[in-house]
Amino acid sequence: MVRVGIIGATGYTGMELARILLRHPAVRINYMTSRTWAGKRLGEALPHLGADQDLLLDKFDAGEATEKAEFFFVCLPHGQSMDAVGSLFERGAKVVDLSADFRLSDPSAYESWYGEHRRKGLLRKAVYGLPELNRERIRNSRLVANPGCYPTSVILGLAPLLEKGVIKRKGIIADSKSGVSGAGREPRQNLHFPEVDGNFSAYNIAGKHRHTGEMEQELSRLTGEEIHITFSPHLLPLSRGIFSTIYCLHEGKLDESTLGGLYTGRYAGEPFVRISAPGAPLPSLKDVRGTNLCIVAPRLDGRTGTLVVISCLDNLVKGAAGQAVQNMNLMTGHPETAGLTDLPLLP
Amino acid sequence: MVRVGIIGATGYTGMELARILLRHPAVRINYMTSRTWAGKRLGEALPHLGADQDLLLDKFDAGEATEKAEFFFVCLPHGQSMDAVGSLFERGAKVVDLSADFRLSDPSAYESWYGEHRRKGLLRKAVYGLPELNRERIRNSRLVANPGCYPTSVILGLAPLLEKGVIKRKGIIADSKSGVSGAGREPRQNLHFPEVDGNFSAYNIAGKHRHTGEMEQELSRLTGEEIHITFSPHLLPLSRGIFSTIYCLHEGKLDESTLGGLYTGRYAGEPFVRISAPGAPLPSLKDVRGTNLCIVAPRLDGRTGTLVVISCLDNLVKGAAGQAVQNMNLMTGHPETAGLTDLPLLP
Amino acid sequence: MVRVGIIGATGYTGMELARILLRHPAVRINYMTSRTWAGKRLGEALPHLGADQDLLLDKFDAGEATEKAEFFFVCLPHGQSMDAVGSLFERGAKVVDLSADFRLSDPSAYESWYGEHRRKGLLRKAVYGLPELNRERIRNSRLVANPGCYPTSVILGLAPLLEKGVIKRKGIIADSKSGVSGAGREPRQNLHFPEVDGNFSAYNIAGKHRHTGEMEQELSRLTGEEIHITFSPHLLPLSRGIFSTIYCLHEGKLDESTLGGLYTGRYAGEPFVRISAPGAPLPSLKDVRGTNLCIVAPRLDGRTGTLVVISCLDNLVKGAAGQAVQNMNLMTGHPETAGLTDLPLLP
Amino acid sequence: MVRVGIIGATGYTGMELARILLRHPAVRINYMTSRTWAGKRLGEALPHLGADQDLLLDKFDAGEATEKAEFFFVCLPHGQSMDAVGSLFERGAKVVDLSADFRLSDPSAYESWYGEHRRKGLLRKAVYGLPELNRERIRNSRLVANPGCYPTSVILGLAPLLEKGVIKRKGIIADSKSGVSGAGREPRQNLHFPEVDGNFSAYNIAGKHRHTGEMEQELSRLTGEEIHITFSPHLLPLSRGIFSTIYCLHEGKLDESTLGGLYTGRYAGEPFVRISAPGAPLPSLKDVRGTNLCIVAPRLDGRTGTLVVISCLDNLVKGAAGQAVQNMNLMTGHPETAGLTDLPLLP
Repeated sequence: MVRVGIIGATGYTGMELARILLRHPAVRINYMTSRTWAGKRLGEALPHLGADQDLLLDKFDAGEATEKAEFFFVCLPHGQSMDAVGSLFERGAKVVDLSADFRLSDPSAYESWYGEHRRKGLLRKAVYGLPELNRERIRNSRLVANPGCYPTSVILGLAPLLEKGVIKRKGIIADSKSGVSGAGREPRQNLHFPEVDGNFSAYNIAGKHRHTGEMEQELSRLTGEEIHITFSPHLLPLSRGIFSTIYCLHEGKLDESTLGGLYTGRYAGEPFVRISAPGAPLPSLKDVRGTNLCIVAPRLDGRTGTLVVISCLDNLVKGAAGQAVQNMNLMTGHPETAGLTDLPLLP
Repeated sequence: MVRVGIIGATGYTGMELARILLRHPAVRINYMTSRTWAGKRLGEALPHLGADQDLLLDKFDAGEATEKAEFFFVCLPHGQSMDAVGSLFERGAKVVDLSADFRLSDPSAYESWYGEHRRKGLLRKAVYGLPELNRERIRNSRLVANPGCYPTSVILGLAPLLEKGVIKRKGIIADSKSGVSGAGREPRQNLHFPEVDGNFSAYNIAGKHRHTGEMEQELSRLTGEEIHITFSPHLLPLSRGIFSTIYCLHEGKLDESTLGGLYTGRYAGEPFVRISAPGAPLPSLKDVRGTNLCIVAPRLDGRTGTLVVISCLDNLVKGAAGQAVQNMNLMTGHPETAGLTDLPLLP
Repeated sequence: MVRVGIIGATGYTGMELARILLRHPAVRINYMTSRTWAGKRLGEALPHLGADQDLLLDKFDAGEATEKAEFFFVCLPHGQSMDAVGSLFERGAKVVDLSADFRLSDPSAYESWYGEHRRKGLLRKAVYGLPELNRERIRNSRLVANPGCYPTSVILGLAPLLEKGVIKRKGIIADSKSGVSGAGREPRQNLHFPEVDGNFSAYNIAGKHRHTGEMEQELSRLTGEEIHITFSPHLLPLSRGIFSTIYCLHEGKLDESTLGGLYTGRYAGEPFVRISAPGAPLPSLKDVRGTNLCIVAPRLDGRTGTLVVISCLDNLVKGAAGQAVQNMNLMTGHPETAGLTDLPLLP
Repeated sequence: MVRVGIIGATGYTGMELARILLRHPAVRINYMTSRTWAGKRLGEALPHLGADQDLLLDKFDAGEATEKAEFFFVCLPHGQSMDAVGSLFERGAKVVDLSADFRLSDPSAYESWYGEHRRKGLLRKAVYGLPELNRERIRNSRLVANPGCYPTSVILGLAPLLEKGVIKRKGIIADSKSGVSGAGREPRQNLHFPEVDGNFSAYNIAGKHRHTGEMEQELSRLTGEEIHITFSPHLLPLSRGIFSTIYCLHEGKLDESTLGGLYTGRYAGEPFVRISAPGAPLPSLKDVRGTNLCIVAPRLDGRTGTLVVISCLDNLVKGAAGQAVQNMNLMTGHPETAGLTDLPLLP
């Protein structure tokens, strides 16, 4: 059994980790922290997990943490996470960080999008935790930076095209739509129920969203060239899910059947990527709700020569907690799918 | 008082016309038809309009119709509408057709997207009813083809750029998200509440949606060149609203302030187009719900040189019934805003 | 023209007042306050009303207020409202207070439900602003306490039965379901979108909700006996609407036809109460959305002898701002329906 | 391994059974039928379960069914189900029927609520499948009538009170609110997304809903007296969940602490009933979504002497497919919780 700790357990990613890990066959949650609920029992803080859950929620203390557990999920806001991650890592623990703090390997990129980085030395030890790209490096790492929800959907949608070099590197557009849980559990005016219900909006468009840097870093790595992307996030009136519609232009000739083969080939054997090949029904968010799946549907608009790739996932699972557990499974030598076999809750 | 008839009054566009026209200061609804509710009173068919609404719903009969009214809104499905429109027009009535039947001036375009056209002779008499483009022609017309909801949002979003020739004509993308009422009132498996609630999906992407032809016709007219567009419609889990995020590449130099000025200049004096200039808050669907407004927000992504234009409206008002009444006001010499002064229902 | 002021203009009831009053034919809004937005223009604070709305939002000052306006709507939280109301009233203004501060005529009742009352002397000058019960007193009043949203629905649902003495006074139950806007615009954890979406819950049941006292006061007045009621509020995953299902036991014999007649008779001529008599379709919340209507549907369960009365309204209109304007119309000698003729936004 | 068949696999209860049984450790689905999808693979009919699901969907044939499987879940509409159940039972299979056809043991009761019964002889062999009431009889039965979703919530909410005789048998009221999936997967006008979204309504109130008879049968059995209940079903704008607010009057003295103890005592050891005792947070529908739980919260309104009992569950799980699997576990000697350990999907 892996003795596990969750740092920041009462936000949405922490809650989702608890939901998954409480049923994981090879895990025991031994340590949980919460600023708001410190001193209370888990069953009081998160009664939906069972009023009888007796684990006490603590304030974070790295020494106590590493006495009780050896593997940690850190679910703190960016800027706060780096210190907790650093102190756990230095004590020899394995860590998956769900914040943005170790995703950008270039400190100056971090600083331009987020602010000062106080643990620059650790950046080069962190592996970007997208198993479909970096499986072996994740297996051998003690520090994994769990990808953002938007980047997971966009990178998985584009990787086969960029790896094969079949698209132009300029003019890539990702029009992404996210459920509200992606913005966290903290109440805010613009996320107040009556403001979102029956509504739809865009935010931080035209190069202002922080996930842009993360996407560009990984897409550039895939090609060896600097890639810039136009990224437009939108807010959906639903709780869970990210749906990205990605546009790019192909180089040379390409038909839909070749396109489909390129994706099914690239992701053959991947347990959590499913391809909707041209001709198959398009996926919708409820096809992935509650699961660790990313469904990718590549299509070709023959009239304009534009590739349209849909990529959708549950932002709290494949976009956060589920992918973190997938990474843990790799880092601890367990089957990659352990604890992650839920089918979508539909309808 | 204009004596008005609504052909097909119990679908969503017919209902919305009734909602608007019952409060219009210069209109009297004298004739309404419904296949399903023929022989019943309006108050039985649509009790939310008032159980005491005594007008009898009829089966359509052009002779009776033109005895009772002189101005008609035809809300029948495409393919059925053309015959009703033709017979009313021939009897001297003024008609706004809310179907697609008279939107495409080239019969072969109609046939490639929709099927056979039985009233080709009328096509050249019909004016495309987008007042912001064709105000004077609408005033002088007896037959107006009311634009589709998606095309209204996309054309109003692109017109200033295409008229000024500041963007490339290739590579235009419209990623549009629609509320469910846009698909009509007929129950269908994929529009059954539990299938849509908490869900999001794309449909007819990659050149398969019929509104593509309509958009391309009008955008080509604006430029004098044949324009093709990549159009991706999506289904939002809400009832009303269309939100289009439009991408294109500018020619030459352009900054956000020039961009904003281009839009505010183009739409100065337009009663139903509102510009969110760069720097202003982005619009959301509830800002237009229940109103005849289209809000357009042009932005420039300086990192990639891509223009991102948001255009949103209520698909049942500016996207259908409201625009139809705006056209009626023009065609009958009433103030263009008569009956269309509702403010958005928010929250 | 009535020169009007809105104190607390950027919460949901203030916003709804603005939506109604900006189109009211006999009103001019001359003064608005907002703690959060003081110093900004209305068009900045509430851009959906039109970015060009130039009225400056102020901090509240009674002297300035009464220079600029003569009629006030006070939309402050209970406990804060009484002071603003008092100072405006003393300066000779007419006031409709939308808080709870002047609804309970017995100061000790106020104190047991809400806390200390600092303007007890004014309590006896205030009229409970339910026009269907107190129309003449409202006309002659300078201070009207606008009823709560739940009480409006429950009292209108029960009044005909209690006035005629056809039900037992014990055992009345009101099971009410409210949209989230009834809880105000302030963001809160339990009203955060992902917590409400797809969810349903009860709160303050079993005698704990403050509106219980208000209902009991008015129901007791109708009968001259002390009435207690079991009131269960619930939270619906939607923005607008209150739907009360009321249960009581009739005295003596009663059939559905007599029951229906009792309601249609009682509310004959009422512009904003509509009866769904037995046999007619039951109302739903969208039948009243955006309108000042209350629809009441009395039914009899012949198997158990229980009366089941449904009463539904839009909590922001007939449950708050619309009823406030109805009261203003009465207090200023305008037609009772002025500004309140919107039809429901459906779908 | 139990070889299982699902008759009527592509409605919501069939889909939910598949979701549960595909992950059940002791089950193999060997046979599935669907009128609509006969001849297609499961992965085509229900792609969210995995496009690679190769089981062919058949038209129902009892002989073929009993060759391939020994345990059946019948998810056909009432009236159709009885024949399929009869033919499977006669061939020696064990059957859980999810329709209403075997719930009412008195054929005349069935006929008054539903219509003709063609398998009256089987009625007395059927056990009402509420394990919390009939666990031992279910273990020993070959034919279990799976309870309705509303009755499950109401009976579990009332059983402790009726068994102990602490409430009056007259005047029981159940005000129930259901998600839309309870009405089935067939599209209908009143369940079309735009009609339900943002809306709330009641239907079949005042003694008209068929589940009334089922509740009364079971409640009467618990007490040995004929019980009548006032039952009001409502439709919530969400997909999954039933929330019943139940009202009754206690006999003699009762305080909240005794009340709480009565419930925790009655359901001690029940794996799927959770009590929210007085003082604990009230449950909401998302606390049970996707799980086989029923949460019951008894409260006492001291001001009126009314007991208010909340009982909530997921209509597709504890209200249908989950309870059916719970029954199967009992009938086949597996642990009662096998396959039913999901935690709620929240948010």
